[in-house]
Amino acid sequence: MAEPVDSWSEQGKPPSLHRRFVFDSYGQTRRFLDALAELSGQVGLHPQNINFGTTYVNVTLDATDGQALGETERGFAAQIDALVRAGR
Amino acid sequence: MAEPVDSWSEQGKPPSLHRRFVFDSYGQTRRFLDALAELSGQVGLHPQNINFGTTYVNVTLDATDGQALGETERGFAAQIDALVRAGR
Repeated sequence: MAEPVDSWSEQGKPPSLHRRFVFDSYGQTRRFLDALAELSGQVGLHPQNINFGTTYVNVTLDATDGQALGETERGFAAQIDALVRAGR
Repeated sequence: MAEPVDSWSEQGKPPSLHRRFVFDSYGQTRRFLDALAELSGQVGLHPQNINFGTTYVNVTLDATDGQALGETERGFAAQIDALVRAGR
């Protein structure tokens, strides 16, 4: 991974968590996306939206209760960060 | 797949091809994304952007020469359509 462009930011109403990840190559991007899909299946949580190109991935997590962000969303975000660290 | 929301449309300058695919389930969405990643690796072409949630995928193909859409892009678009038909 090249570098985190920003950390998770809270946006919108109802609030969602957003983070942009930038990678050095399509291969790294692909590995992150595959790991994220596997994690989603394991924990039963899916990002509201994933937006990606060859070397970037934007992830948006919405509030699972439709109202407020809590431990569930912040824990999922931390697990996604861990995937990036593991893939370096 | 539920139904195609629209066919490929040409947008912007330089032009890009865009299409939205809607699926009945996350499983179908996932299979399409995995097949699209495999196709990209095989043909050596990658969408400029893929934007997805649990039941939709928006695909944007840019002009590989940075200027005009041609046989390469339209052929890739047709191959992507074929993945959806195969996954039904």
